[in-house]
Amino acid sequence: MSKGTPPSGVGKVSLVGAGPGDPQLLTRAALARLRRADLVLFDALVSAETVALARRARRFPVGKRAGRPSMRQEAINALMIRAARRGQRVVRLKGGDPFVFGRGGEEALALRAAGVPFEVIPGVSASIAAPALAGIPVTHRGVASAFAVVSGHAPAAYEPVIDSMRPGAMTLVMLMAVGAQQEIATALVTRGWPPATSAALIFGASRADGDTWTGTLAALARGDGPPPEDRPGTLVIGDVVRLRAALTDEDEVPGFQGSRVLGF
Amino acid sequence: MSKGTPPSGVGKVSLVGAGPGDPQLLTRAALARLRRADLVLFDALVSAETVALARRARRFPVGKRAGRPSMRQEAINALMIRAARRGQRVVRLKGGDPFVFGRGGEEALALRAAGVPFEVIPGVSASIAAPALAGIPVTHRGVASAFAVVSGHAPAAYEPVIDSMRPGAMTLVMLMAVGAQQEIATALVTRGWPPATSAALIFGASRADGDTWTGTLAALARGDGPPPEDRPGTLVIGDVVRLRAALTDEDEVPGFQGSRVLGF
Repeated sequence: MSKGTPPSGVGKVSLVGAGPGDPQLLTRAALARLRRADLVLFDALVSAETVALARRARRFPVGKRAGRPSMRQEAINALMIRAARRGQRVVRLKGGDPFVFGRGGEEALALRAAGVPFEVIPGVSASIAAPALAGIPVTHRGVASAFAVVSGHAPAAYEPVIDSMRPGAMTLVMLMAVGAQQEIATALVTRGWPPATSAALIFGASRADGDTWTGTLAALARGDGPPPEDRPGTLVIGDVVRLRAALTDEDEVPGFQGSRVLGF
Repeated sequence: MSKGTPPSGVGKVSLVGAGPGDPQLLTRAALARLRRADLVLFDALVSAETVALARRARRFPVGKRAGRPSMRQEAINALMIRAARRGQRVVRLKGGDPFVFGRGGEEALALRAAGVPFEVIPGVSASIAAPALAGIPVTHRGVASAFAVVSGHAPAAYEPVIDSMRPGAMTLVMLMAVGAQQEIATALVTRGWPPATSAALIFGASRADGDTWTGTLAALARGDGPPPEDRPGTLVIGDVVRLRAALTDEDEVPGFQGSRVLGF
């Protein structure tokens, strides 16, 4: 048996976090899995440069982006299971970390129920990295000693969570929040968050074309936020946003500015 | 000028996340910085195998671990600034992600105030990866649609945060919480968290010697948690902990079991 061959007829599925976009933010373990993969099923948020690292694999987009057609979850599960049973090395590649939203846990349960060997390769989560690269630490001594990560894709997901939080007690990071930015800001102000609370929307974190909008909850609530573009964004709310002006060359004028200011 | 030489007399500081421990969970960007570094200042939580990747660098431990002597923050800042001004490539290597606790933001501010070029290389945070590798997704549809990350190192850090949260509304992840596990669990139960709430303490995430304790808030509050060992641990509280039994070969008996069950 050559070195590159799996030890038996049963393959394996790796649930792999692709990080926020730049392929340099892949882990070494993720890169190794991609290079050896026979089949890669990737989400829409994963960058093309990252997918291209799986040189010898068949590569299929399976969607998972708001408002776009996606392969059904059951079909994704069935595809992974069938390929692994044929002895293939399957990589299920997800933006950020596989267990921060994105249904990685559900896929793991399906693989386990099918008796298919699998592993989890954690990734750099955009919930932390997108703010960091925009000059916003999610925690900072004397400013924020905790942060909460919430999905902003639907009121049913975020309303119970923001109902449960005292305004301003933690940095609030909301993923998939671009489309609902106005509703989210309105919901927060309605629940007692000061309208002057700083907010940032970070687009294309770690990518060359990234940029960041900064302003206040009041601006977002009255519809003066960035246009709800067709790209993913990370919303950060809290006093830590103000550190951006001190940590970067960006001035304090609200609006759009370069995102990758602390990039590499 | 040879390829390996910095372009000018002024060097650069890279604030680098080392991930949870296994060097395979370093990012590619972090590995590149370590390999070229002239000087590495590393925290106590960074694994020896990771530090060893900086083959050509002088390497200094600077502490930052509860109850141990550490270099003072001002001294760390001064060392970084002096080395960079001598043209060196400095890596400030932190466990997990540099902007999740660990004072990365403060170091960035000091570098900026000194006019020293710096960059931030986000890392895989133990707040997400430690639970994941133990079979605990921090979010899971129908179980938890948000998570909060809190420092457990002192009541002044965690009490205002848990005071601000409705019990059970989010997965709660507490870093640096091993020593205060009993106080933290008591504080949560006092604030209305059901004593039967599931809890896990994950030691040595991603390392071969890792293990995980599982039980309830009640067990932690009465002092029946794991011995407060001399190693870092991640405390996870919430219903997602119960997914571990379905996702791994571990049975549901509370107590210690292997940690790296979904590892690689």
